[in-house]
Amino acid sequence: MEPFTFILLELAFIIGLAAVGRGIALHLNQASVLGELTVGVLLGNILYWLGAPLATVIMHLEDTQKLVNEVWVSGAAIDEAASRVFTAQELAAGGIANELVTLLVGPHATEILLMTISLWIFSNLGVILLLFMVGLENSIAEMLKVGPRSLMVSIFGVVTPFFLGLLASFWLLPDASTPQHLFLGATLCATSVGITARVLGDLEQLKSQESRIILGAAVIDDILGLIILAIVIGIISSGSVQMLEVGRIVLLSGAFLVVVMLFGEKLVSWSVRLFYRIFNKLQVKLLFPLALAFLMAAFTNYIGLAAIVGAFAAGLIVLDEHFEGDSDTSPTTQDLINPIQTLFAPVFFVLMGMQVNLESFLHTDTLWLAAVFTIAAILGKLVAGYAAGKGINRLAVGLGMVPRGEVGLIFASIGKGLGVVDDSVFSAIVIMVVVTTLITPSLLKWSLERSTPYIK
Amino acid sequence: MEPFTFILLELAFIIGLAAVGRGIALHLNQASVLGELTVGVLLGNILYWLGAPLATVIMHLEDTQKLVNEVWVSGAAIDEAASRVFTAQELAAGGIANELVTLLVGPHATEILLMTISLWIFSNLGVILLLFMVGLENSIAEMLKVGPRSLMVSIFGVVTPFFLGLLASFWLLPDASTPQHLFLGATLCATSVGITARVLGDLEQLKSQESRIILGAAVIDDILGLIILAIVIGIISSGSVQMLEVGRIVLLSGAFLVVVMLFGEKLVSWSVRLFYRIFNKLQVKLLFPLALAFLMAAFTNYIGLAAIVGAFAAGLIVLDEHFEGDSDTSPTTQDLINPIQTLFAPVFFVLMGMQVNLESFLHTDTLWLAAVFTIAAILGKLVAGYAAGKGINRLAVGLGMVPRGEVGLIFASIGKGLGVVDDSVFSAIVIMVVVTTLITPSLLKWSLERSTPYIK
Repeated sequence: MEPFTFILLELAFIIGLAAVGRGIALHLNQASVLGELTVGVLLGNILYWLGAPLATVIMHLEDTQKLVNEVWVSGAAIDEAASRVFTAQELAAGGIANELVTLLVGPHATEILLMTISLWIFSNLGVILLLFMVGLENSIAEMLKVGPRSLMVSIFGVVTPFFLGLLASFWLLPDASTPQHLFLGATLCATSVGITARVLGDLEQLKSQESRIILGAAVIDDILGLIILAIVIGIISSGSVQMLEVGRIVLLSGAFLVVVMLFGEKLVSWSVRLFYRIFNKLQVKLLFPLALAFLMAAFTNYIGLAAIVGAFAAGLIVLDEHFEGDSDTSPTTQDLINPIQTLFAPVFFVLMGMQVNLESFLHTDTLWLAAVFTIAAILGKLVAGYAAGKGINRLAVGLGMVPRGEVGLIFASIGKGLGVVDDSVFSAIVIMVVVTTLITPSLLKWSLERSTPYIK
Repeated sequence: MEPFTFILLELAFIIGLAAVGRGIALHLNQASVLGELTVGVLLGNILYWLGAPLATVIMHLEDTQKLVNEVWVSGAAIDEAASRVFTAQELAAGGIANELVTLLVGPHATEILLMTISLWIFSNLGVILLLFMVGLENSIAEMLKVGPRSLMVSIFGVVTPFFLGLLASFWLLPDASTPQHLFLGATLCATSVGITARVLGDLEQLKSQESRIILGAAVIDDILGLIILAIVIGIISSGSVQMLEVGRIVLLSGAFLVVVMLFGEKLVSWSVRLFYRIFNKLQVKLLFPLALAFLMAAFTNYIGLAAIVGAFAAGLIVLDEHFEGDSDTSPTTQDLINPIQTLFAPVFFVLMGMQVNLESFLHTDTLWLAAVFTIAAILGKLVAGYAAGKGINRLAVGLGMVPRGEVGLIFASIGKGLGVVDDSVFSAIVIMVVVTTLITPSLLKWSLERSTPYIK
């Protein structure tokens, strides 16, 4: 069989399983994304216990990336590449690096890698399209209306978890250094908006005030988080705040936001009119918005923000009225992008589930640490929700900010690389990320349905 | 920047360039797919001359695949892996293997590989979705109506090029062995239906008799080609026809066709009714057909046929009436899959163009060989078109069968691996494939517009 056949089988399998997960979740009156996550957790861990190479590689995606990268950067054999990026402990028999080296050599190694890479590509594409769709549901004007509330939520959503994290760290890790305490606090600041966006979309709540506050706060949160990370890294690596780096982030992020807010919609409107003269309508309505989303996602990632922030901003500035002159029955940009998103976004959530190693919950010594971090992480964001002000469902806003997702994991692995996060703390952070991510869909759904009983 | 950012930039760039290519082609009244191919040829060759690593890797995609595969299968360093899969000549300074080893090691090696792999994934996905869409436009019943004509076209389309190829080989390569002559004849039998399907789709001609004859003939051609390949390989490797292998192909392909024709539509109809009870409509209408297409493509590839044959067959058995009960205004499966296809199919044609190395046209000694092969290849399929019988545009049918595309290249590389196709003959085959692929869109468009002046 050609290698691509394995990718087709894998994609068909994930599509099918994700649909089953959604079906079961809806049957149990849970958020459908929880079904996809759970399917991923079960699939990943069962295959992992059975010793399936693909599941092991996916569960250790970051280590695999490091190893594969080193093989190509250095041109060395995989054994030697592994000895450069892993510790002696990881390389010992039974260690993860040892296992990866064994799995990534052999007659099926190429297929395993290609299947992993394709899942990673589809998953990344999926979450970018998801946030682009979420952006399409809203506009700059609507976001600005809730701007002050979003700002308050994001400031409190960064400050409160930071201090709660510091407190927890001082209490439970009295021997840790100041940089270690600071880094742990910073790790709790992150917000990953993917899960929340999906729940809000499934409940058709994307145009509600609560949604807009959460989405706006998530964008600001991403910028604040990046600044805090830069400050903490500066303190750790050079003992002082790197004002140049902080200034660069503030300037670039600020410039991006200003350009998007002031000129974004006009630039899109002008481009659409230009392209309508050259290309056919389907292309302008589908391919131009997609290319814009990809380029803006690449740009925000280039300046250090999450790619999904750019995709969301692209969605905000593409408006249906830009394409007027079309008949009312012709599909909108949303109609056209929805099928692509429906195909790929579930891959993101299944893959996220597959990376949860249930074994990490078995170490009782880290569980206590994890429990306290998790409570600090949740409490911190609930306080932030309270800062959203009166007249709205503040609990829902807070709950919407709770998931740490991949952002928390990125922080934790940077800390691991800097030597301020040891294995036990890292496991505790992973558990915190998993728990905040897995509990959110159901709680958010419950909170929104309670306050607006008419939603389905 | 995260590695995925490079993939986003690349995809946005290819989407944009493909749209420009289509725009120019339509402006010049040429088939839009020719625009995409030309954009690919120009982009690939200009970047190649400028020494861009990505273009070099893509232009030598097969060699790259061999090398990367060997690295992971053997776990050896890239130098050693290269010494195992390439000849001394290819490994010498200036040789392609030498160049690839240099390009695939270094700080950007991982990005180059990921960008190549993602293009390859999107391209494969694109052509599978394209043929699935083409299948959706038709049904089994409509295909069977032109069945006898398709059968005649495919039989003549295999026999005539085979004997013309044999003649050309005896004439121009008098010193070659019988297996070499046979293999060359077999190489000319292939039909790659992707280009033709795209032209027919763009002209909204997919429901015409000519289209159905070509599509049916292409499916049978794929089976006949596989049988001929098995026979010729058997003669080359063991000196006799491997009846067991031929029987296996006949049996599996026959069983596949029979199951699809007799039970395909019923199975889909039954599945749709079942899934409607469990899942929501969008999922059943979009995800079930997609999963079916992927699974059937994987299956045909598993039995040795092209994956696109399975995708096309999946399209044939999915009918709009399976989803009845929906309102008339809700989007059909075609409406839902079209955006995904519109995004990815152009990647296939741009990538195909990028693999055309214009340098191969510079070797005058192979050009003569190439010219004769090309004439034999074209004439052979035009005769096949004539066999389609009266009352239709036989020239268009013949032209539709002309492109050899990737199928011809696969045959040629198998021959290279078996040692019956030397470098000069290989280059001549590549030129034949390129020429038959590039001339078809315009000629087919011209021929169809001449016979049916009302088409746009």
